[in-house]
Amino acid sequence: MNRKEVIDWQEAGVVSTGKSPFCKLRSVPIRAVKIKSGFWQPRIEINKSQSLMDMFDLLQERGAIDNFRIAAGKKKGKHGGFLGSDSDLYKWIEAVAFALQSENIPKLSKILEKTVDEVIEAQQNDGYLVTDFIFGKRVKERLQDLGRNHEFYCAGHLIQAAVAHYRATGSSRLLDVARHFADYLVATFGPGRRQGHSGHPELEMAMVELYRTTGDTRYLDFAGYLLAGLNFAFLKYLSGHAVRVAYMCSGVADYYAETGDKKMLETLKRLWEDMTSSKIYITGGIGSRYEGETFGEPFELPNMRAYTETCAAIGNIFWNWRMLQLNGKTCFADLMETILYNGFLSGVSLDGLKYFYRNPLASSGIMVHQPYYEPDGMKYSYKEPPSGSTAARQRWHGCYCCPPNAARMLASLPGYFYSISDEGVWIHLYDNSQLDWHLDNGKKISLIQQTHYPWEGTVDITVLPEEEMEFSLFLRIPNWCRQASIYLNGIRVSQIPSPGSYLKLKRRWEKGDTVHLEMEMPVVLFECDPQVRENLSSVAIQRGPLVYCLESIDNPDVSIPDLQLLINSQNPGQNFTLEFRSDFLGGVSILRGKGVLFSTHWKRPLYQPMKKQSVSTKEVQVTAIPYYAWANRGASQMEVWLPWHASTKTL
Amino acid sequence: MNRKEVIDWQEAGVVSTGKSPFCKLRSVPIRAVKIKSGFWQPRIEINKSQSLMDMFDLLQERGAIDNFRIAAGKKKGKHGGFLGSDSDLYKWIEAVAFALQSENIPKLSKILEKTVDEVIEAQQNDGYLVTDFIFGKRVKERLQDLGRNHEFYCAGHLIQAAVAHYRATGSSRLLDVARHFADYLVATFGPGRRQGHSGHPELEMAMVELYRTTGDTRYLDFAGYLLAGLNFAFLKYLSGHAVRVAYMCSGVADYYAETGDKKMLETLKRLWEDMTSSKIYITGGIGSRYEGETFGEPFELPNMRAYTETCAAIGNIFWNWRMLQLNGKTCFADLMETILYNGFLSGVSLDGLKYFYRNPLASSGIMVHQPYYEPDGMKYSYKEPPSGSTAARQRWHGCYCCPPNAARMLASLPGYFYSISDEGVWIHLYDNSQLDWHLDNGKKISLIQQTHYPWEGTVDITVLPEEEMEFSLFLRIPNWCRQASIYLNGIRVSQIPSPGSYLKLKRRWEKGDTVHLEMEMPVVLFECDPQVRENLSSVAIQRGPLVYCLESIDNPDVSIPDLQLLINSQNPGQNFTLEFRSDFLGGVSILRGKGVLFSTHWKRPLYQPMKKQSVSTKEVQVTAIPYYAWANRGASQMEVWLPWHASTKTL
Repeated sequence: MNRKEVIDWQEAGVVSTGKSPFCKLRSVPIRAVKIKSGFWQPRIEINKSQSLMDMFDLLQERGAIDNFRIAAGKKKGKHGGFLGSDSDLYKWIEAVAFALQSENIPKLSKILEKTVDEVIEAQQNDGYLVTDFIFGKRVKERLQDLGRNHEFYCAGHLIQAAVAHYRATGSSRLLDVARHFADYLVATFGPGRRQGHSGHPELEMAMVELYRTTGDTRYLDFAGYLLAGLNFAFLKYLSGHAVRVAYMCSGVADYYAETGDKKMLETLKRLWEDMTSSKIYITGGIGSRYEGETFGEPFELPNMRAYTETCAAIGNIFWNWRMLQLNGKTCFADLMETILYNGFLSGVSLDGLKYFYRNPLASSGIMVHQPYYEPDGMKYSYKEPPSGSTAARQRWHGCYCCPPNAARMLASLPGYFYSISDEGVWIHLYDNSQLDWHLDNGKKISLIQQTHYPWEGTVDITVLPEEEMEFSLFLRIPNWCRQASIYLNGIRVSQIPSPGSYLKLKRRWEKGDTVHLEMEMPVVLFECDPQVRENLSSVAIQRGPLVYCLESIDNPDVSIPDLQLLINSQNPGQNFTLEFRSDFLGGVSILRGKGVLFSTHWKRPLYQPMKKQSVSTKEVQVTAIPYYAWANRGASQMEVWLPWHASTKTL
Repeated sequence: MNRKEVIDWQEAGVVSTGKSPFCKLRSVPIRAVKIKSGFWQPRIEINKSQSLMDMFDLLQERGAIDNFRIAAGKKKGKHGGFLGSDSDLYKWIEAVAFALQSENIPKLSKILEKTVDEVIEAQQNDGYLVTDFIFGKRVKERLQDLGRNHEFYCAGHLIQAAVAHYRATGSSRLLDVARHFADYLVATFGPGRRQGHSGHPELEMAMVELYRTTGDTRYLDFAGYLLAGLNFAFLKYLSGHAVRVAYMCSGVADYYAETGDKKMLETLKRLWEDMTSSKIYITGGIGSRYEGETFGEPFELPNMRAYTETCAAIGNIFWNWRMLQLNGKTCFADLMETILYNGFLSGVSLDGLKYFYRNPLASSGIMVHQPYYEPDGMKYSYKEPPSGSTAARQRWHGCYCCPPNAARMLASLPGYFYSISDEGVWIHLYDNSQLDWHLDNGKKISLIQQTHYPWEGTVDITVLPEEEMEFSLFLRIPNWCRQASIYLNGIRVSQIPSPGSYLKLKRRWEKGDTVHLEMEMPVVLFECDPQVRENLSSVAIQRGPLVYCLESIDNPDVSIPDLQLLINSQNPGQNFTLEFRSDFLGGVSILRGKGVLFSTHWKRPLYQPMKKQSVSTKEVQVTAIPYYAWANRGASQMEVWLPWHASTKTL
């Protein structure tokens, strides 16, 4: 049954594309990359030292671990938590396993192995393992309603956790459990057997990765069976639940990487075009609709009501990372970076202890505990709005999917920085870091990055091959960068870096060669397609990969919704001054500019006849912070898209 | 038990406020008003001759009448239609009864009485009468889940239908059934008995009207009990299901009219202010959110996703009409007019056979049959979007609440034109019509209106008192009217009509006195509070009470979303030419203006750095039609709020 050569556990990346016939790029293992002091290192560190421990306590408290103990017959009790809560624990296991791939952390390791014990003991003799249906009222529903009951989803997360655990430890004790469950599903469902497809894609990605890990083609075939059931190839545009769609597309990309099914690639490209041309926020957030947590119609991108679930941002990173591995196209790396720095990172508080479920692009700052008319209830009552709909991050969500998802993203981030191809080394992300890996020929190669990215656009790379040899270094020139220059050992190279491409430096590299990349990083004001009517006549402030926002706490003298940004429309972006403040919001560059206020005649009524133009010319100072850092200082009004007023003066 | 003098059935208005101690105005019966050839007459006529007959056929087909036959034991079968479908039939009965209050229509009368027979025979011995719970699977649920099961709601509609039937015929045969059910509810629920409140207000209004009709104070008290259970007096702002809230507020206004509970009036005023300052569309539509068909946050007024249910517009007319009767303030009549001509009327097709459930302010024109990811289902599947979410009106809706609601509104419309007070006669609405009624002193008074309203702002009124006598004539000067003048018997009166007020003409009126009202009716461009970001830098075109829109069928050379209206910002509105076309869309004034197109650089990507201002200056002709008439010629792009571009030229 094992038709494929598998990659050694210590050599496998987050997604192990090293033997995937239809991938141009091959991932490098997390352990091959050290992230050093800079932008991401403190976040990864807080994730390990704070978030993962706090999450473990919460999962304990809320019964997610007891569920396994009860399933194992070691304890008595009711099932705790939301349907499918096993998956939250599995994501936590996966996150810890990723962290341990970076470094040995005995405390985490110990808790991890104890937790793995609990999971192992809960498995049923036949291999089945979803605690919701092992004990209690719902036992009879086991595998009866795959559309609703998230059993395939939980199985997928078990497999992903087990693969990460195996790649962290070399021990297959959790992997064996995952295979046992996978074998049970493969034996039960499929062509000529029972038909079954999940309401929430996830198992598809996991089955491909299990195939990559074990070489057992039955898992790959099962992924193909699952995807066929979703009618994927016939999808013309993105619709439906954003997280599910992103996970599905990720699974399809994984399946394509192994099989080369062209129809699937075409559909992936079509859906990606649909997303980027009309269904994604400037922050990289997707899924604009509350109803069903879904994609909206084209250009349906409300700012305050943006749903933009943190899990959807993560799913979109998964999808783009896989597309990037397929063909090495910059557009996927660019979008991945946009999501990482904005729509994803906004989901995590600076202290790593609180999370957003939703990541809107505007907020009234008010905690929305409003009297709620229960449509089917007896009377008016006070009811919590859907989780995350307030301006405050929360430690726990009723559906606790996002926090452990964010934790596994951050713990695995080192694995997203570099790739290898036949031609050489690819640098996707910029931050202080060191790669210690090898090329296809087995020769060792180290790269050292030094930079203040994303606050400055300069990156110094030291190339340290084991011995002098010819290969190419691919440097991503992000699409946001209008102007860049590159110096090799101090001498400017003649190649002109083109925005939105990988610059290929091919030469015989010697130990200690240096590459100096200078990317101009001005403040840029972005406009939006006018079909997004809400953003018409507004601009979003961006610098480098970072989207900025205005929060009322930094602009105490104005009401943010009353503000118009004062800009020189002949030279947009010039009106801002930049200041890096290491002591503020974990270290950020803030932007200062000027604004004017809408006339106060608007207090009431809502609609009135157009007057001859009258705008208050009283100038006010405005301060912008990176979007990801909002809502870390209590409730505030916040806006990303700001109406603007033209000034011909140079401020 | 009968503590109150009741009004004779032939003297009662739509809402019978003639003896209500806290009403300033008294309604006049539908039969006292003849609507003559003009704007409303053909719509009322089509409603009688087409809509009511077609609805009856549909209600038959879908089982709404069979439900009563099965409940009566005359037939066997399953329950047909949506939960609470009895109420759809009751609204139809009420509509027919209103129509018969205007004139004798033997054909309708015959069908009505047969249908009333069916209802009467279905009533249970104890008085209970909701067919969903009289036979079939749900018998045991009877009165067990008032929050969900719409039993009080159905009872309310039965009572309203019965009251209208009584006022049409003088026969109490349906009223007796309604009283029997009401008595059963009053005996079962209330203080010291079982507690019960409806999830969908409606019974409150009905109970007050039943009290007005019968004089039995138990019904009034029961309305008070129901309202107390909704914690009405504590509501600080509007939220929740828009139809339910509007019906509740209408019920509260009715209750206040009889009891004078000041806290209730204060709450009504507060909620009305909240609505008009931040939660209503320029069309008068309310309930902006899909989720739960609810009000949104302040300024959450998306155009394309506007939910704006037709029933909510009708509920809002009910509420404003009742507020107007309380105190005679123009703001309520103005809003009622706005809703009638726009957000309500848009719900009914010109041929009276198709209906909108939703009334959005923008449309892509595309039928939204998209592949839908069933959140809890097995796989991707094609699914109908929520009823009314396409650009096409429909003959039948899964929840068939709106069409018969629109029918009863149109059939009762004559009753909304005039009121009587101690001081004289009030004219609320302008159209060719004749009032034949009497003043408080019992003396007869006739008024004849001649006008081309809403296409022209001139109204001629002939006053025909039985004999010369002193009283006041109150003419509504709408808020949209900036400039008006009034002539009495050809001589200009010195009083300057003030917009948004009733102009009081007090004198000794003689038979044949004429009043000539001239309201200037220019094209006015409306702006919106900038907190509704979607409407920023856009304008809505209005003339008189009519909101206009652009439909792509009239503007074949442009894509509506690409269009900017070219306007002279120093003199907005001057750029339009007006043409009345009697052969088009049932007779409308169309507006012609000019526009320019957004530069085509927007085709992609979605976001891009702001460029130096570049707008195509190629002028195009644009044609606007009244909003209510959209979507009568197939699918079209449509927009009410149009981005504008400044022109200093006089076009």
